[in-house]
Amino acid sequence: MDVAERIELALMKHLQAVRGPSCPPGLDQAVQYAVFPGGARVRPKICLAVADACGEDHPEVSEAAAAAIELLHCASLVHDDLPCFDDSPLRRGRPSVHQAFGEPLAVLAGDALIVLAFQTLLRGTGEAPERLAPLVEIISRSVGMPGGIVAGQAWEFEPEVKLADYQQSKTGSLFAAATAAGAAAAGVDPEPWRALGERIGSAYQVVDDILDVAGDVEALGKPTHQDEARGHPSSVREMGLEGARKHFESIMAGVVATIPPCAGAARLEARIKEEASKFLPAALSEHAA
Amino acid sequence: MDVAERIELALMKHLQAVRGPSCPPGLDQAVQYAVFPGGARVRPKICLAVADACGEDHPEVSEAAAAAIELLHCASLVHDDLPCFDDSPLRRGRPSVHQAFGEPLAVLAGDALIVLAFQTLLRGTGEAPERLAPLVEIISRSVGMPGGIVAGQAWEFEPEVKLADYQQSKTGSLFAAATAAGAAAAGVDPEPWRALGERIGSAYQVVDDILDVAGDVEALGKPTHQDEARGHPSSVREMGLEGARKHFESIMAGVVATIPPCAGAARLEARIKEEASKFLPAALSEHAA
Repeated sequence: MDVAERIELALMKHLQAVRGPSCPPGLDQAVQYAVFPGGARVRPKICLAVADACGEDHPEVSEAAAAAIELLHCASLVHDDLPCFDDSPLRRGRPSVHQAFGEPLAVLAGDALIVLAFQTLLRGTGEAPERLAPLVEIISRSVGMPGGIVAGQAWEFEPEVKLADYQQSKTGSLFAAATAAGAAAAGVDPEPWRALGERIGSAYQVVDDILDVAGDVEALGKPTHQDEARGHPSSVREMGLEGARKHFESIMAGVVATIPPCAGAARLEARIKEEASKFLPAALSEHAA
Repeated sequence: MDVAERIELALMKHLQAVRGPSCPPGLDQAVQYAVFPGGARVRPKICLAVADACGEDHPEVSEAAAAAIELLHCASLVHDDLPCFDDSPLRRGRPSVHQAFGEPLAVLAGDALIVLAFQTLLRGTGEAPERLAPLVEIISRSVGMPGGIVAGQAWEFEPEVKLADYQQSKTGSLFAAATAAGAAAAGVDPEPWRALGERIGSAYQVVDDILDVAGDVEALGKPTHQDEARGHPSSVREMGLEGARKHFESIMAGVVATIPPCAGAARLEARIKEEASKFLPAALSEHAA
């Protein structure tokens, strides 16, 4: 089974576990819609690649960790798209959750997805119960206070914010969780793995900023030119398009050095480069150059 | 130290653990505001009373369970008050969180409080790590899909809903978690304890419906006459004011029989009766009669 298939199956299995006739149909549909069909599933792919490099011994634990991270990512997209934040009508090329199901069910679907991430960790660690605590620690840190996704989103409402802090909370934290959770799921100390995720997250965020300025609405499946319109901190606003592209390349050049010693380092490096090569479309890379 | 003090100290301790200079000040303030000063803290009091009746051996575990339940309750109030739900300007006698901090920070504060509930369980079970998994199970079930608080809230947007299902999800689930978590925190099988919490929750919900019709805005600290205005299912709408009052009394009369055998059953019964006696103010009890 390839990695993409493992991720979809894990997501389906853990969502299935909380469905049923006692669930309000609207909420059930909104949650399914928020998760399927997905985007690139970059974070869970990185999580599984790290688990593999660390000598994965309980596949269902790493699959649960990867699924939990993707569920939190989906939750953050649903809430970010709400009228009081980005007010985005489009996501993944179709109406955003609040456009399709209304604002109340979008708020509740996001809440339910956050809870489901923890239910997923619990269900996935039945065979290795000692791995639940480190995974709860990693996952909760990536999304909660003081420096997780909610904090990153909240920085948008502060009068002053440093770009690096903002990007680390809003994007880096979940990538750091992806690598740390991959290690923890394999029974390996997660701390040394955070730096790798943070670096990949930084690169990803710079690309996101570039695509917001130079990307194509149809290819991205979401509106562009939002950072400037909303006054959000952005690499492009800070260093220009060409500066941002160079910044991306210099971040990626340092990725290899941040991979902790492990049996599968070479395979992991290849996978990360493959994923990263998809971040910035070739056409855009020329456009920016 | 009395129970009320234990609860406030546990809440302060677990909130303190996620504060710090790296947290956006607005989010930090909104979260503090959502939790302090609190309401009656009914759910954590019941949780601690059950832990005591079950022979509590790790006070910090039961305090974390009680705090987690109160944090989820606060999260649900913050999101319920949002413009897209109850659009309530008042809570606990002062502006609701979105009135005081704006809608974006209210959404994020609710999200952060949900995550903080799990962080609290993790931090509280350091001395008894085998109790983390049952507590995560109980807490996540009470708030997530298919039958937790978010599901209860989502029933308000369905064309048809049974009053009992709605109330069980929206209110009963967190009371069931309070009794179950109290038992699990003391290392006792939680399942037999759910029925007690569900019953207390049912009684509490009936009182809430009565107060919505016959209560006093100033004493309640929140708007009244909301169920009818919003077309929410309500005991009073279904059985009238006098019928609802009798229903409350008949639910409470059955509470004793639902207490599972335990060393501290008599003390627990007295505490539950004491808490329940505060549900319906004396004046209102006459008004309704």
